[in-house]
Amino acid sequence: MRIDILTIFPDMFAPLQDSIVKRAAEAGHVKIVITDLRDFAGNKHKSVDDYPYGGGPGMILQPEPFFNAVEHLREEDPEPGHVILLSPGGKIFSQKKAEQLAQKKRLILLCGHYEGVDERVSEVLVDEELSMGDYILTGGEIPAMAVADAVIRLLPGVLAPESRSEESFSGNLLEYPQYTRPADFRGLKVPEVLLSGNHGKIKEWRRRKSLLRTLLNRPDMLKKARLTAEEKKYLLEEARSRKIDILL
Amino acid sequence: MRIDILTIFPDMFAPLQDSIVKRAAEAGHVKIVITDLRDFAGNKHKSVDDYPYGGGPGMILQPEPFFNAVEHLREEDPEPGHVILLSPGGKIFSQKKAEQLAQKKRLILLCGHYEGVDERVSEVLVDEELSMGDYILTGGEIPAMAVADAVIRLLPGVLAPESRSEESFSGNLLEYPQYTRPADFRGLKVPEVLLSGNHGKIKEWRRRKSLLRTLLNRPDMLKKARLTAEEKKYLLEEARSRKIDILL
Repeated sequence: MRIDILTIFPDMFAPLQDSIVKRAAEAGHVKIVITDLRDFAGNKHKSVDDYPYGGGPGMILQPEPFFNAVEHLREEDPEPGHVILLSPGGKIFSQKKAEQLAQKKRLILLCGHYEGVDERVSEVLVDEELSMGDYILTGGEIPAMAVADAVIRLLPGVLAPESRSEESFSGNLLEYPQYTRPADFRGLKVPEVLLSGNHGKIKEWRRRKSLLRTLLNRPDMLKKARLTAEEKKYLLEEARSRKIDILL
Repeated sequence: MRIDILTIFPDMFAPLQDSIVKRAAEAGHVKIVITDLRDFAGNKHKSVDDYPYGGGPGMILQPEPFFNAVEHLREEDPEPGHVILLSPGGKIFSQKKAEQLAQKKRLILLCGHYEGVDERVSEVLVDEELSMGDYILTGGEIPAMAVADAVIRLLPGVLAPESRSEESFSGNLLEYPQYTRPADFRGLKVPEVLLSGNHGKIKEWRRRKSLLRTLLNRPDMLKKARLTAEEKKYLLEEARSRKIDILL
C-alpha cells in the first residue's frame, strides 16, 4: 500500500517513522509519502489560505494547492488512490473503516487546518471525509497519523496474526486487565487466579473482567455483545449495585 | 499548564513542536515535557515489558517504570497532576472532556503500547483512562498528542476568542461549508449567496448547510441540537428523499 499525506506541516509526521509503522515501511508493506501543500501554492509567497467568502473568523485553505498536489502525486504513481479529508465534519472513523481502508492500494490523506478547507476540495477531489471523534484538534495532521497507523497495522504481514485476536472491539467487549512481572510490586499483587495455571478459571476470570470493564467504561458497547443468560444476569447485578442504567 | 508525556517512543512527539501548539509553548501557556519510560526501567537493559500472567499473546508494559517515572516527575514539580492512561479500553475522549482537562494545572499522560499496560498502573497511579474512539492504534502516542492538542488550544490566550465560536459541536451541528478565493476555480464556483453581501441570506444558507451536513455525516448529533419547527420539517424532508432514518 502507498499512503500519501498532504499537509502544510510535513515535519509533524515523525510518529510514522517509529515503532511498528517504521518496521512495516522497512519491510516494504507500506510506502508513506509526505507532501508539503505549500510546494503547490501557485504563488511565490507559498501562501495557501485566504479569507472565507460570506464572512466569518479565520482563514480557509484554498482549493488550488490540493488539486495541484493530488494531480502531481497521480503523475508520480498512476494508481488514483482513495482520497480522504480529515475534518471534524466527517463521519466518525472506526475499526471497521480501518479494515475497509486496509483493502485499498493507495490512500491520499488531506490534512485540513485553520478554520477549514475550501468546500470544492470535498465536492470534487475527496472520496470521503473522516473525523477522529467528537473533539476539535488544531489540524488534520494527528488524525492522518491515526488513520495511517490504524490501517498499517492491519496490512498482511505487519503484525503476528495472534496478536490481534483478543483485542478490544473484537466481540464488542473491552479487553480484560493484563498483568506482568513482578508478581508482587510494592505489595500490589497479581490476582492469584492468573498464577494458578488453571486455564478454565483464567478464561472465566478474564471474561468477567472484560464484561465489568465494558460496563464501567463503554456500556454503549454491551448492546452489540453476544452474552449468555448468566452473563446478562451478572451484568445486571453489577449495574444495579453501581446504579448504572443498561439495556442488554 | 504543564503536560508530561510518558512513552517508550519519545521521538514521536514532533507534532507538539509545530503550529499552534508550538506558539502556545513559546508564549508560556503550556510546558510540555516528554519522558522516556526506558530511563526508569530499573534494569541495565532498559527493558520495560514482559509476558502476561495467565498466558496470551504479546508483551505487557511493567508497572515499575511508570511508578518510578511519575514519582520522579513529581519531584521535579510538586503539582501532582491529573494522570491519564491512553488506552482502547478507556472512556471515549470528547470536547467536553477536553474542556475539563483544560482546567487542570498539570496533566501526566501515560502511553500504553504492545498488548497493554500492567493493570496495577491503572488501579493505583491513573486518575482516568481515555480512548480516542473505536479503532485500534499501535500505541498511546498519537492519542496523547490528540489530547494535548485538543486541550492546549482551549487554554486562555492560545486562540483568538472568535475563532472558536462557530465550530463543529458547538450547538450540536457540524460546521457549514467554507469557500475562499478564487471565486471561480477551474469552473467550480463559490455559491452566489456568499458573494451577495446579504448577511441574513448568508446566515440562513449556512444554517441549512450545517443541518444537511449533520444529517448526512452525523445524524446521531441531531437529537441534541436545538431546532425550530421549520428546521425539523426541512430535515425530515431531506431525510425522506435520501432514505435516511432520523429521530428529532
